[in-house]
Amino acid sequence: MTSYRFARRLGAVPPSFLGTLFAVSADPSVISFAGGLPSPAVLDADGIARAASEVFAEFGPAALQYATTDGHRPLRAFIADRYRRRLGLDVTAENVQVVNGSQQCLDLFAKCLVDPGDSVLVEAPGYLGAIEAFSLYEPSLVSVPVDELGPDLEVLERIVSGSRPKFFYAIPNSQNPSGLTYPDGARRAVAELLDGSGSLLYEDDAFGELFFDGRPREPIMRRLPGQSVLSGSFSKVLAPGMRCGWILAPEPVLAQFNVAKQAADLHSNLLSQLVLMRWLETHDLDAQCRRVATYYEQNCRALLDALDDRCPELGHTTPEGGMFLLARIPPGISSLALFEEGVRQGVAVMPGRPFYLEGGDDVVRLNFSCVDPGSIDEGVARLSRALRALRG
Amino acid sequence: MTSYRFARRLGAVPPSFLGTLFAVSADPSVISFAGGLPSPAVLDADGIARAASEVFAEFGPAALQYATTDGHRPLRAFIADRYRRRLGLDVTAENVQVVNGSQQCLDLFAKCLVDPGDSVLVEAPGYLGAIEAFSLYEPSLVSVPVDELGPDLEVLERIVSGSRPKFFYAIPNSQNPSGLTYPDGARRAVAELLDGSGSLLYEDDAFGELFFDGRPREPIMRRLPGQSVLSGSFSKVLAPGMRCGWILAPEPVLAQFNVAKQAADLHSNLLSQLVLMRWLETHDLDAQCRRVATYYEQNCRALLDALDDRCPELGHTTPEGGMFLLARIPPGISSLALFEEGVRQGVAVMPGRPFYLEGGDDVVRLNFSCVDPGSIDEGVARLSRALRALRG
Repeated sequence: MTSYRFARRLGAVPPSFLGTLFAVSADPSVISFAGGLPSPAVLDADGIARAASEVFAEFGPAALQYATTDGHRPLRAFIADRYRRRLGLDVTAENVQVVNGSQQCLDLFAKCLVDPGDSVLVEAPGYLGAIEAFSLYEPSLVSVPVDELGPDLEVLERIVSGSRPKFFYAIPNSQNPSGLTYPDGARRAVAELLDGSGSLLYEDDAFGELFFDGRPREPIMRRLPGQSVLSGSFSKVLAPGMRCGWILAPEPVLAQFNVAKQAADLHSNLLSQLVLMRWLETHDLDAQCRRVATYYEQNCRALLDALDDRCPELGHTTPEGGMFLLARIPPGISSLALFEEGVRQGVAVMPGRPFYLEGGDDVVRLNFSCVDPGSIDEGVARLSRALRALRG
Repeated sequence: MTSYRFARRLGAVPPSFLGTLFAVSADPSVISFAGGLPSPAVLDADGIARAASEVFAEFGPAALQYATTDGHRPLRAFIADRYRRRLGLDVTAENVQVVNGSQQCLDLFAKCLVDPGDSVLVEAPGYLGAIEAFSLYEPSLVSVPVDELGPDLEVLERIVSGSRPKFFYAIPNSQNPSGLTYPDGARRAVAELLDGSGSLLYEDDAFGELFFDGRPREPIMRRLPGQSVLSGSFSKVLAPGMRCGWILAPEPVLAQFNVAKQAADLHSNLLSQLVLMRWLETHDLDAQCRRVATYYEQNCRALLDALDDRCPELGHTTPEGGMFLLARIPPGISSLALFEEGVRQGVAVMPGRPFYLEGGDDVVRLNFSCVDPGSIDEGVARLSRALRALRG
């Protein structure tokens, strides 16, 4: 029997809940609010198929060849143009690196910034994929509580001036897991607080195209030029399985990021970049985003109505966009117990623990993007039965 | 002006020569032996295009959805079956993880194994992408000289019993950069030497399908079950731009590798996996490999003939497959000088330095896969003029 000498960093990764989740979501009798997928109903497979066929006709074998590490240049230019036009960011293609979905930004950015023991600041609750990715670089993770008003500014200031974190990782738009969006004032305050502090801002904008009211929110990056990076992705609005995201960064940061990207996998899938670029040239991305956001808004309203109606004892966030909301469980019931009893009743919710460095057992995340709209009310009815069973 | 506090590991990466190379390869008047691309002449774009169209027709939006971290199961099973059948390896789909080209294996495997300062053993010369990827985990890299007889076994034994490296990274088949293939005896000796040593073997098999004689060589893994991993890829025989490779590993290693893969980018491109699987179901991979190998063999022979004819002062390896050979430059001429004078004469070769931890300035790498067959003789004539110019 061989014994393996794995690296120490693997011990820093929190245990994953995904295996349990997959087992649950494979059972068709369970109504699942536990997942995090976009709805297949809004993915434009026909449009992508046509784009692919046009790409093969135009490029032939060149669509299958090795490519540059930074990404397909027209796609980088499209992404930069859109940020300039839509959000007033002062960026060009030179500030854009294409990656395999924005999850890869988490890994590569941490790789560029974090030495073991460095302080890194995350939100509480925060995106579990970020906590996992960062953990492998053995940072000292600290968290700042986030609620409807944005991050707790007192805590943020204390941590930034105290341990001078390498960066603050935040999802200001329709956060996963909470669905919370920073108010405008909180964005200004975060920018002022970080400005000149030596800590960078990592603004994860996975959901900024999915506001129900269609109104773009100002990225904090706009007030922190040179001191922030922003990541985005086609995963929530076009095609998650094509793994195409990007990072927007000052050129000195991008130069290092590029070294890490090249070492990690040379470059992102060229065929996918060409196909997505062709789709973008021949379709209206704004219209697609509105279509997705409208679909999710209807689901979200149905879920909120059902929760208020059937589970009034659950406090919950009220998302302005995105795919998730967070519900607070009455005292005395743990999120893991609710998960387990929920599955017995035929409904799955995501326990809160993995979204926090400590605690979190008093909340659950509910996804509304990938649940059958006709099942939402029944799912919440089952959740209500699970709550009653646990209290009874 | 913001000053950035990058991680220490970035300082460990050797400077990249790629920028210079790209500039040279953009000039159509330069005949380039410096690159490393497969020939577009052998990429089956029509077949891949048909496979893509069939995948969209069958899967629709499901082809664009998030997927599991370990990879598309039928593809994993196909890969395992092929190793069982072709090379007698005792593996199943449970031993296979799909990644973004085998470059990603280098990154993720090192991430799983290497703590800063750990000893890691590479070949000299060795694959520069591996040296870059490993460097970011701050190992103590040591190298073992490799020639026509395989790795220097005395040096290998001394290092393995001395610093007990976490692993030995080797490309036993048609190595990049040298084109060398380990003889059967060397494979047995390496297996015996590593067996029970505590050091793993990382067998990079990027070129094993491209032997000119079509005969598979026995992987060292076969003699080191439980103590080795093997990586492969569709990049050299089907579609590099689709970034689809894999690692074959014992399950306890794969479980950790999977954690690193999930943190790195959740999963590899699903659409590409489905398209490649469809191609594999509807085409003969063996025939495709023979087609590629035959094309490269003709180019290789033309290059060898031209070298022997026009540059007899260059010693060189004689590849049995793959895409590269290594040439030794006469004393007194550096590989960098030959690169620069070559470009002036209209030919590019890859200087040897990046393939060695130390030295290497007396060799150049010549690629024969991606040069126009009609330009090979003229390219070598220009190389001969560059050599004459340097000897003055």
